[in-house]
Parts: sequence; C-alpha cells; structure tokens
Amino acid sequence: MRILITSGGTSEKIDDVRAITNHSSGKLGKAIAESFLKEGAVIDLITTRQAVLPVGENIHPHYIETTADLAKTLKALMTTHSYTAVIHSMAVSDFTPESSVTIEDLETTVAQNPADLPAALSKIEAERTEKKISSDTDRLVIVLKKNPKIISLIKELQPKTILVGFKLLVAVPMLKLLDVAEKSLEKNRADFILANDLAEIHGETHHGYLIDKQHQVKEAHTKNEIATLIKQEVMKLEEAQ
Amino acid sequence: MRILITSGGTSEKIDDVRAITNHSSGKLGKAIAESFLKEGAVIDLITTRQAVLPVGENIHPHYIETTADLAKTLKALMTTHSYTAVIHSMAVSDFTPESSVTIEDLETTVAQNPADLPAALSKIEAERTEKKISSDTDRLVIVLKKNPKIISLIKELQPKTILVGFKLLVAVPMLKLLDVAEKSLEKNRADFILANDLAEIHGETHHGYLIDKQHQVKEAHTKNEIATLIKQEVMKLEEAQ
Repeated sequence: MRILITSGGTSEKIDDVRAITNHSSGKLGKAIAESFLKEGAVIDLITTRQAVLPVGENIHPHYIETTADLAKTLKALMTTHSYTAVIHSMAVSDFTPESSVTIEDLETTVAQNPADLPAALSKIEAERTEKKISSDTDRLVIVLKKNPKIISLIKELQPKTILVGFKLLVAVPMLKLLDVAEKSLEKNRADFILANDLAEIHGETHHGYLIDKQHQVKEAHTKNEIATLIKQEVMKLEEAQ
Repeated sequence: MRILITSGGTSEKIDDVRAITNHSSGKLGKAIAESFLKEGAVIDLITTRQAVLPVGENIHPHYIETTADLAKTLKALMTTHSYTAVIHSMAVSDFTPESSVTIEDLETTVAQNPADLPAALSKIEAERTEKKISSDTDRLVIVLKKNPKIISLIKELQPKTILVGFKLLVAVPMLKLLDVAEKSLEKNRADFILANDLAEIHGETHHGYLIDKQHQVKEAHTKNEIATLIKQEVMKLEEAQ
C-alpha cells in the first residue's frame, strides 16, 4: 500500500524578502501519516521545511514552497507511482502575488484609465525595476491572481485512487461547513472530504467531520481521532473496491 | 552587561489563515547572541517561534509574531532594564494588511468614485462580513498600510544605549547600499548599521559592511565574522564612553 500525503502550508513570494504564507503546522498530516505507517504503508509526503515531520521508516519527504512546486511534485509522483489513496491536507494558497504598486501609482493610473484595472496594474509592474518593493509609500497595493486548484489534478492523474480532500472554514455554522464540503467533494471527484473550522481547533482539540459520497458524516474530536477515522474509512473503501 | 537582540522575521495577518511573512532564519541573530554570551552578557532575545534559538545560559527569549507585538515587547523590556546595547537584526514588516477586496468590487467602486481610493477601499472592507477572504474571484487586491518604524523607538527609550541597526537590500551596487545604510544611521540615531545584500547571502557566506558614525566601514564575510565584528565594535565603544 502506497499513500501520498500533502501536509503543511504553501507560501508565495511577494518579492525577494516577503511572502504570503498559509499557516499550517503539519501536525494533522503527521498524525495521518503515522496512522497509515502502522498498517505497513509506504508514504510519499509532500511538505514544507516549516512543517513537522512524521516519525517512522517508509516516509519519503518531498519539500516544496509554492503552489507551482506542489503541482509539479504531485504530477511527478503520480506519474511514477500508483497510490491506494491521496490525502491532500496541505493548506494551499488560493492566490499568488501578481503585481504590487504604491497607492499613489494606482490612483494616477486609475484616473487615466478607470476601465481596465488589471491591464493598468500589469503596466505599472512591467515598468518597475527594483527587486524589493520600495517602502517609500504610506500604502502599498498587492494584486493576487487565483491559482489553479491543485486538488482537481488528482483524479485526472489517477482516477482510481481514493481521494481525501480537506475544507477549512472559519467560524461558520455547521450546516454551511458541511454544504461547502459536499460541493468540494463533488467538484473534485473526492471520495471523502474532511471538513473543519479553525474556531474549533485548539492544540490537540481538533473538531472535524468526514463526509463521503453517500452523504454520510462521521465526527472526530482530536487530530489522532481524525487520523484514525481517515485511515479506517480509506481501508474500508479499498477493501470494498 | 545586558544586551537586547531582536532576531527572526515578523509576520502580519491577512485573515485567520493567511499572513505576510518576512523571511529570516534567525541564524545571524543567533551568532550575535552567542558572541556576546562568551563575554558573560545577559541577553534578552525578542524572536519568533520559527527562528533558531542561540545555545547557552543567560538567554531570555521573548516570542512575538507581529510588528505591533514587537513594539509592545520592546517598550516593556526597555522600560524595565537598562541595556548596554540593542542589536536590532529582526526582519520587520514595513506594511500591515489593512483591507482586501476582489478586483470586481474595486473596479465598481473606482468607477463610482475614482478620487478617493483609500476611502473606497475601507468602505468595501467595512461591509465585508466573512472572516476568511473569499476565493471566489480571479483577482484579489490587498491594501497594506505602512507600519511605524520600530528602530526609531530605541533611542527615544534609551538615548545612551548603543544601537546597531540593519539594512538589507537586494542586488544593489555597493555604494548605493552604503548610502542607504548611512541615511538609516542618521535618521534612527544608530551607532552602527550593518548593511547587507540578499544577493550576497548563501548559507554560511554572508557579506556585510558595518558602518559607524565616523563614516568608517568594516567588512565581514560570514555570519560568525559579522557577529564577532559587531561584538568587538560595541565593546570598544562601550569602553570609550
């Protein structure tokens, strides 16, 4: 049994000294990896240098930083190995910095041509020569471009792998959380989505719902419970297939 | 001899899951702290959980995340203890996220009122209710507000402490680097500025220039050389005072 796990959070460069990072300690990914290790699985782990590493043999870490790195490494691994399951717990940046301008430049450009903001922004960007954004302004405007969704690649690369996705929201009602998770499950052809809310994660306490294609929901209350639940459900589905 | 060292890089929240971070491993701060420890100094170290810690007794770490935390901790320490020197090597965010909008909202608002962009942006922000920025747009615009300069607090709090500031630029000519460093020295009433260029930092190799109030420049080529140079010059000045 070979399992691919993504863990930690991506970071996207703004300039040579600044980045936008997605917080993620990697602790949940570690717990999931360790629960599969106990079953004798071999694990490829795509993670970051900041995230905690699982303990055990048969772990092959692959380090990345950006969403683009993640896509590349995922494709390379998924065209080399066949995976029983892919557990995509990494916090991935939805956006990458595209351009940055001072508010003065933006106001000038907008006054000249209010119709096409993206074009105006990329023109300012093209004319900038400094590698580190000047701090010589009161307000800086950063424009971020949406990243392609990595999770949608997984079933394209291996339609038969068992895909576990994650959906993290912040302080939303339970039904909203489950609804968003179910939409993500359908859209990305996932077999399971682990839905969780940042307001319900404190240290070892980690409230999560695992939803499946039959609209069933199973609940867990700690990182270890979530890890065990995911392992059990993945192995049950693998045996049934 | 009590020394205050800042080390690592601050990070500023965009929302509950994303932040803008300034990269800094804390390795240079560690080397500086360890060189002063050898002289029997007691060290207060303001740093982050991500940065490496110096090894030794007589190190008191104070953990922070944001620039606002840094200002608060610095003020608390500097009104409690008297420091022989303050060595401010932390990479501090120049800007803090103030508001974030989708490009669609920005275009609509700009079309209505191109004259006052900051006001329009804060209006959109005030009307937003989600705690995590929606990823339901192709482009996201983040407006950052300039932070107050922390280094300028230091001589206000303790005019007699020896202040060592840092200036990091990226791929600039040497004379430009020294010129920017000298302006920072005058503006912040620093006794020394360590000027360095990210293009000349690779692993242990770390090219730096230490400039003083007499416009003298001393050069170092590794983190340990920089640490030793700073310690020697600080102690020389302390003895002369």
